[in-house]
Amino acid sequence: MSVFEREVVVRFEHCDAAGLMFYPRLFALVNEMVEDWFAAMEHSFACLHVDQRKGVPTVEFEAEFLRPIRMGERLVQSLRVLHIGHASCRLLHEAQIGGDLAARFEQTLVYVDLNTIKSEEWPLDLRATMTRYEEQL
Amino acid sequence: MSVFEREVVVRFEHCDAAGLMFYPRLFALVNEMVEDWFAAMEHSFACLHVDQRKGVPTVEFEAEFLRPIRMGERLVQSLRVLHIGHASCRLLHEAQIGGDLAARFEQTLVYVDLNTIKSEEWPLDLRATMTRYEEQL
Amino acid sequence: MSVFEREVVVRFEHCDAAGLMFYPRLFALVNEMVEDWFAAMEHSFACLHVDQRKGVPTVEFEAEFLRPIRMGERLVQSLRVLHIGHASCRLLHEAQIGGDLAARFEQTLVYVDLNTIKSEEWPLDLRATMTRYEEQL
Amino acid sequence: MSVFEREVVVRFEHCDAAGLMFYPRLFALVNEMVEDWFAAMEHSFACLHVDQRKGVPTVEFEAEFLRPIRMGERLVQSLRVLHIGHASCRLLHEAQIGGDLAARFEQTLVYVDLNTIKSEEWPLDLRATMTRYEEQL
Repeated sequence: MSVFEREVVVRFEHCDAAGLMFYPRLFALVNEMVEDWFAAMEHSFACLHVDQRKGVPTVEFEAEFLRPIRMGERLVQSLRVLHIGHASCRLLHEAQIGGDLAARFEQTLVYVDLNTIKSEEWPLDLRATMTRYEEQL
Repeated sequence: MSVFEREVVVRFEHCDAAGLMFYPRLFALVNEMVEDWFAAMEHSFACLHVDQRKGVPTVEFEAEFLRPIRMGERLVQSLRVLHIGHASCRLLHEAQIGGDLAARFEQTLVYVDLNTIKSEEWPLDLRATMTRYEEQL
Repeated sequence: MSVFEREVVVRFEHCDAAGLMFYPRLFALVNEMVEDWFAAMEHSFACLHVDQRKGVPTVEFEAEFLRPIRMGERLVQSLRVLHIGHASCRLLHEAQIGGDLAARFEQTLVYVDLNTIKSEEWPLDLRATMTRYEEQL
Repeated sequence: MSVFEREVVVRFEHCDAAGLMFYPRLFALVNEMVEDWFAAMEHSFACLHVDQRKGVPTVEFEAEFLRPIRMGERLVQSLRVLHIGHASCRLLHEAQIGGDLAARFEQTLVYVDLNTIKSEEWPLDLRATMTRYEEQL
């Protein structure tokens, strides 16, 4: 099992007038993780959406925000696969600051054809690569 | 019990390259509802954040996306109060298109002092007004 | 000549950690004006982009920011047509707060086919409607 | 003279329903360059805005968009200093794709005190560092 990780700095534009990260921006960073993960699995979003006309819309999200996140802090984002279904997968995202968990997300996304917006089985090669990120419990 | 509602048109900038609403933008629209609701309760976010140095950060979010949302569609957003705690409240947001539920959110937010980022009891007048939006079960 | 106008309240999410409107958000509000103006001229962006596969990308922008814009202020946005070309048009946007000019933009946009990304002549009916917003000098 | 540069990939969320970069997102990327440049000059935006209560709002912008920018393309952004005034500076930003100029910006920003929103002279050390990025003509 491997974990997909990256580190980002909390930017000026992520923060609101309270000087804290504005949560819709954190959802955008979580989405960037999914995008970077697909790119790392050789299925870039450009290729997926434009060439293949497939998409991975989110159907469910659970989020916990455990501590405020401030401008300039270094956020370590991680992504693990909790479950791979026929046409869906469930991801666990964590965001840590200095070793402390700052936010935690569970996200279910579905593989769909963009012309019909109907779900489809994962392509076999993609599914095989996704399995490597599966959390062993 | 009253429901807080508004109608918005799904804009060009809400949509992604798939032509569907990009979910971080929908979270931003949900946040606008909270902002508009506070303004309707005579506690504008400008007054709250700048003058009083209080904030209402989100600590928990559950979201279900039930159908794709497309550019130009009219989205009816509603907000109900599920529970009012000492320093927190739990909201139910729904987004409907043509009478169909398109997305559903439960959000817990906390009233905090922005200088200390510690939770505080709701002011009595604000709490009394919030009660009017409480869902009777 | 008529002016296309709307009033918006400066929202929490438009403002940065300095409590002032963050300029990329103001460009987004300027873009909303163009979108609302096209909708008022019976060419909604949904219809334009999705059904007709046409777009109106911006090729030039000049912006002056004359005073800070704060959360909660009421912004009156206006749009006038300075010039209509073969396939382009030049717009003057102003944003006022309490009668004072806060920002001023000149924007040139071009009518293009989205499949080829080549410019095309304005459709006659659209061009005729645009003319009504032309500034008389 | 040195040029401040970085390379970014055009993301899913930068693109609109036409599959092209949405220009307010490009202004946000230009703003990120300014933020990264200040950080490289040892004046992070977190320190500047929160600790020192100073800001660098933009007062003027000129932008030219020379070719469409697509999802997945690699954008090389560069920043040069055109002029350093008493309390302001004028920057030249370029964005290139595969060696071709895709967009060009001239931006004037001003150093202000966030409490008074009045301009102030650049600190001497910051000004000295900025000079190293000045374009020799």
